[in-house]
Parts: sequence; C-alpha cells; structure tokens
Amino acid sequence: MNYPNRITKQSKNTLYGNRGMNLEHELNETNNYYLVNDIAVIYKKPTPITITKVDYPSRVEAVIKEAYFKVPSTTDYNGIYKGRYIDFEAKETKSKSFPLANIHKHQIEHLEKIVKHGGISFLIVRFTLKNTTFLLETTKLIEYIKNNDKKSIPYEYFEENGYIIKDKFNPRIDYLSIVDKIMEG
Amino acid sequence: MNYPNRITKQSKNTLYGNRGMNLEHELNETNNYYLVNDIAVIYKKPTPITITKVDYPSRVEAVIKEAYFKVPSTTDYNGIYKGRYIDFEAKETKSKSFPLANIHKHQIEHLEKIVKHGGISFLIVRFTLKNTTFLLETTKLIEYIKNNDKKSIPYEYFEENGYIIKDKFNPRIDYLSIVDKIMEG
Repeated sequence: MNYPNRITKQSKNTLYGNRGMNLEHELNETNNYYLVNDIAVIYKKPTPITITKVDYPSRVEAVIKEAYFKVPSTTDYNGIYKGRYIDFEAKETKSKSFPLANIHKHQIEHLEKIVKHGGISFLIVRFTLKNTTFLLETTKLIEYIKNNDKKSIPYEYFEENGYIIKDKFNPRIDYLSIVDKIMEG
Repeated sequence: MNYPNRITKQSKNTLYGNRGMNLEHELNETNNYYLVNDIAVIYKKPTPITITKVDYPSRVEAVIKEAYFKVPSTTDYNGIYKGRYIDFEAKETKSKSFPLANIHKHQIEHLEKIVKHGGISFLIVRFTLKNTTFLLETTKLIEYIKNNDKKSIPYEYFEENGYIIKDKFNPRIDYLSIVDKIMEG
C-alpha cells in the first residue's frame, strides 16, 4: 500500500508548486486538457477506502472520522477515446528497473481482461532517475512476466518494447498520441 | 449529498441480509456476475473523498482520521462490454416521479460527453414504491430536460421512453440485455 506516501507527495506539490510535480499530478493535468479540448473523457478513479465511522456535525455536512485504505481491484485510470475503452495504471519508480511489486496481481489480471474485451490497456511507468516516461502495452507486460522469473522489469525492456512519452508543455504527458499509434498498428 | 444515507442503508443490508437489498447492492452483484462469467468488466467507482488527516499507528497500516465527501464529477459506474465503453448512474427514489435534483448537473454533462465520444451511457432508476427499475438512455434524459421546466421526470416518461429491467435471480438486474437492444437499434 503506497497511498500514504502519495498523499505526502501531493501536499509537497501544493507547497512547492511545479517543482517535483509527480506523475499523478501531471496525468490529471493531461486528462483535464483532453477533457476541456473534447479529445477524450478519462478520469482517475477515487482512492478506494472502507469507511467505518461518520460524524454528522450538521444536517448537511458529514465528516468521516475513521476509514481505511483498501487494496484496489482495478486500475487507477479509465475512460473513452475515439469510441474505444481506455484503461491504465501509472507508476513512478526511483529504481533502475521497475519492481513488479508496484502493481497488484489483480490489477494485472484486470488489464488482461480489458484487452480480452476489446479495450486498450497499458502501464505508464516513469523512471525518475532518468526522467523518462514509458507506455507499455499489457501484452508486453504479460509477455515479460510469463518469460521471466525476475521481480522487476529492466529499463532496457521498456526501451525495446515500450513507447517513450515525451514531455510537452500542454498536454504534459501526451499518452494518447501513443494510443493513436497502437490503434493504427 | 446523499452518501451518508447510502452508507446507513448498506449497513442495514449487512444486518438483515437480502431483505430491502438496495439497488447499489444488486448492481454490484450483477456486475460481479458479468465479471466472473467473462461477459463484461464494469465496476462501481469508489466514493470520492478528500482526506485531510491520516494516522500511522504502525509502519504498515494507515488510518484516515478526517475526510470529507466530495461532489462526484462523473458517474458511479463504468466499464467495457463487447468492446464498447459503458457509463451510467444509478438512483433509487421513493417518490412517484424522479427528482432531477438526484443527479448533479456535471453528471448529466458527463453522460452527454460519453455519447459524443462514442460510448453508451444511461441512467438506471428504481421506483421503490412500484418496485420497478428502468434504463433510460442519455438522449432521452436530455430530451426531457430540454423540453420541460419540471424538477422531476414523471414515471410515465420512463414507461414511454425507457426500458424496464426485469428482476431476475442471476444476474439480478440484467441491464446488459437492454444494452444489447440499444446496440442493435
């Protein structure tokens, strides 16, 4: 569970502006660009939690007083682009290779199901050390897992089997330009 | 904001089993049926909240100590069926007509955007007094709003412009059988 870390990171962003802006923040900006410009409708899902205690200080306002983070059963992002169902998970890593422990097993199964049902699903992985962001299709992810016993995917595998998403000003992470290539192919 | 009510209802269900099982619960069962039988991948999104305080009683566990319900910007349910993007909102009402206050303005806008981008979007509305559940396509919802000043949609409008979703044993609310008709038409 890495939600608590993520929350800390977000409040840092709020304090220091764009410095160290993380992948989640940049993807939210990108998705907002797609939405406002009528290109796609893709959202990050809310963090799944279990609420155990709610207070009602007034008739209209409710305050959650106790809740727990749940293990997500799906990915963080989904939506629609050019009539196609889009689904992905996004992760940042400080390591030199991508630790598979960063994705839950049922998230990988979910990505596979999406492909089976005719959707487009993938991982977006940022290597912060190299400041490089890749899109890796689910088929390539599964291929690696099936053929390797390692607990992480090397950077080189992303170079050879993924697509680099170049940083832009607006939209910041134009992953749909890669999805266009996937659709054509 | 009607989340607090929903939470109360759910805990009632836990206590009394199927008696008074609500629409949300039945839809979750239905979606699980679709998932397990490899028919579709459709999930309810987690309730959107803003977390303001988190405690770390141990290294592994985090407890949310203060959080607030957010107004949702999208609908509750989305996913993929036969390669198509599916998106809907589900509501129960004890009234004789369906109060439009039950859906947020930006949820209606969201449903419209989905249609525009080639997806299938709709409302599922249950009238508890009549124990009848309808599927109403977004186009019909918009048509009503554009041509009427009323604050609610009469039951008869659903009868004339919607589809009745018959109760079944399994899946309980087989709304995809209606989506099949929509796809054919």
